[in-house]
Amino acid sequence: MHSSLKSYLSAHRKTVDSAIGKFLPAARVRPATVHEAMRYSMFAGGKRLRPILTLAAAEACGGEIEPALPSAAAVECIHTYSLIHDDLPCMDDDDVRRGMPTSHVKFGEGVAVLAGDALLTIAFKILAKTVPIAKSRYTVADFVADLADTAGSRKLIGGQILDLEGEGENVKLTPAQLRYIHESKTAALLSCSVRLGGMAANATPKKLEALSEFGHSVGLAFQVIDDILDVTQTSEKLGKSAGKDEASDKSTYPAMFGLEKSRKEAARLTTKALKALKPFGKKGERLEQIGHYLLDRDY
Amino acid sequence: MHSSLKSYLSAHRKTVDSAIGKFLPAARVRPATVHEAMRYSMFAGGKRLRPILTLAAAEACGGEIEPALPSAAAVECIHTYSLIHDDLPCMDDDDVRRGMPTSHVKFGEGVAVLAGDALLTIAFKILAKTVPIAKSRYTVADFVADLADTAGSRKLIGGQILDLEGEGENVKLTPAQLRYIHESKTAALLSCSVRLGGMAANATPKKLEALSEFGHSVGLAFQVIDDILDVTQTSEKLGKSAGKDEASDKSTYPAMFGLEKSRKEAARLTTKALKALKPFGKKGERLEQIGHYLLDRDY
Repeated sequence: MHSSLKSYLSAHRKTVDSAIGKFLPAARVRPATVHEAMRYSMFAGGKRLRPILTLAAAEACGGEIEPALPSAAAVECIHTYSLIHDDLPCMDDDDVRRGMPTSHVKFGEGVAVLAGDALLTIAFKILAKTVPIAKSRYTVADFVADLADTAGSRKLIGGQILDLEGEGENVKLTPAQLRYIHESKTAALLSCSVRLGGMAANATPKKLEALSEFGHSVGLAFQVIDDILDVTQTSEKLGKSAGKDEASDKSTYPAMFGLEKSRKEAARLTTKALKALKPFGKKGERLEQIGHYLLDRDY
Repeated sequence: MHSSLKSYLSAHRKTVDSAIGKFLPAARVRPATVHEAMRYSMFAGGKRLRPILTLAAAEACGGEIEPALPSAAAVECIHTYSLIHDDLPCMDDDDVRRGMPTSHVKFGEGVAVLAGDALLTIAFKILAKTVPIAKSRYTVADFVADLADTAGSRKLIGGQILDLEGEGENVKLTPAQLRYIHESKTAALLSCSVRLGGMAANATPKKLEALSEFGHSVGLAFQVIDDILDVTQTSEKLGKSAGKDEASDKSTYPAMFGLEKSRKEAARLTTKALKALKPFGKKGERLEQIGHYLLDRDY
C-alpha cells in the first residue's frame, strides 16, 4: 500500500464512523431494538470503502470533506441494509459476516428485516435533511434520485433477484447475466458513491461522468476479486463463510472462466478505472491509490 | 355513504391506479420477477385510502390533483411495502390479504423481501423525479424528509417492531404502548398522506398543521375500527384471516378495553378529526365525507 494511503484510509474511516454515529438515532432511542440492530450492523467492522470513495471523489473535484459526509453516510446505509437483507435465511442464508453473527442470527429475522428497512429509509432522510446545496448546480432531488435509482429494482435489488434465481443446480447463468449481477449488485453503488461525492463538490457534469466510469470499473474489479478470494482464502482470513458461493453452486467469475482469466479481468478493469481519472490530474491521486489498493489485494 | 362520495372515491381510485401504473416499471422490464411482484401487491385490490386522501387534501387547499399524484403514488408504495414485509413468516405470518395470497406465498420469501425493498426505494425516486416544486414554498427535500421520517425507525418501522415484540403470551402491552403502535403504524402515514397533498398544493404551514391533525386522528380511528372489525367479522367479508390478532394473543383495543369502549373511542377520534377541518371551510367537504365514511364502516 502507498505509504500515506494507510493513514488516509484510517483517518477518513474515523471521520465516516463519527458522521454515521451522529446521523443514526442513539441505541437507547425507542424502540431501542431497531436502533441497536441498525447500529450493530453499521458498526460491524466494515472497511467503509464506499463512503471513503465518496470523500475522495469530493476531494478529487476540489471540494471539502464536510459537505460530502451526508452522501458518504447514505451510501454506507444502503450498503449495510443490502448486506442485512442478503444474509437472511430466505436469501443467501449467511450466519457470519466480518467474523460476527449476522443481524438475523443476533436479533431474529423479523428485527433484521426491519433494521434493513430502517437503514434504507434513513439514507434518504439523511440526504433530504443534511446535504448542503446552496450555491451548487445540484439539488437534493438530484442526490435522492441518483441513490434511489442505484438502490432500486433495476440495479441493486435487481442484481440480488438474479443472484437469488441463479442459485441451485438447475440454473446456469450466462456470462452476460453474471456481468449484470456484478454491475447491479456492486458496480452501481460504487459508481453512485463517487458520483454523490462529486456532486457534493459541485463537480462539472464531465467530471461526474469520469467519476461514474471510475466507480463502475472499480466496482466490477472489486466483485471479481471478491469472487476469487472466496475460492482461494479461508473463512478465518475473510471473516465470512469461505467457499460458500461454490457450495451453493452459484455462478462466479472463477467458476465460469477459471482463476487465471478472472485475475486478468480484474487487472484489466482496474487499468480502465485508473484511466478514467485523467481529467482530475494530481487531485485524482487518492482515487488512483485506492484503485491500486483494491487491485493489489492478496487475490 | 354521501351520494356523490362513491363516484368521487371511484374516480380518484382510477386516477391513482393509472398514475401508479405509470410510475412503476412495466412487469416485463428485467428482472421481471421483482417488477411482477411489485405490481402484484400494488394492484391487489387496495382501497387506495391514503393516496385518495392525498388528492383530497390537495383539493382542500385549493390545489389541483395532478401535482399531488407523485405524492399519492409514493405513500401507496410505502403502505404496500409495509404490508408485504409485515405479512412475512418472520413477522405477522399472513398467507392471505384482500382475499389474495400474500407476496411471499405467491413469489417466495426472498422475492417478497426484495419487492418490499423496491417499493420503499421507488417511493423516494418518484418524489425526487416527479414532484413539481416550481413556485412552491416547499422543496423536494421537504417531501422526501417528511416521507422518510414517517416511514422510519421511530414511526412506521418502530410501530412494527413494538408490534412484533408485543406478540406472545409473555408480553402484555400497556395502553400507552398500544397507542404508540397505532400512532406509528397507521396514524403517521395517514397524517403524512394528507400533509404531502397539502404541500403539493403549496398550502400554508397553518393548513398543513390542520391536515396533519386531521390525518393523525383519522388514522387512530381507522386502526381502532380495524381492530374491532377483526374481532367482529368473518374472514370472507374482510378478505384476510379474521381473529388473527386474537389468535396470536396480540394486544388490541377491543382486547384491552372491550368492544363498547373501543367503538366510543373510534367515534371520539373521528369527531376530533372533523373538527380539524374547520380552516378549510367548504373546500374541506370531501375530507369530511371521507372521515364520516371511515367512521360509518360496519363495525
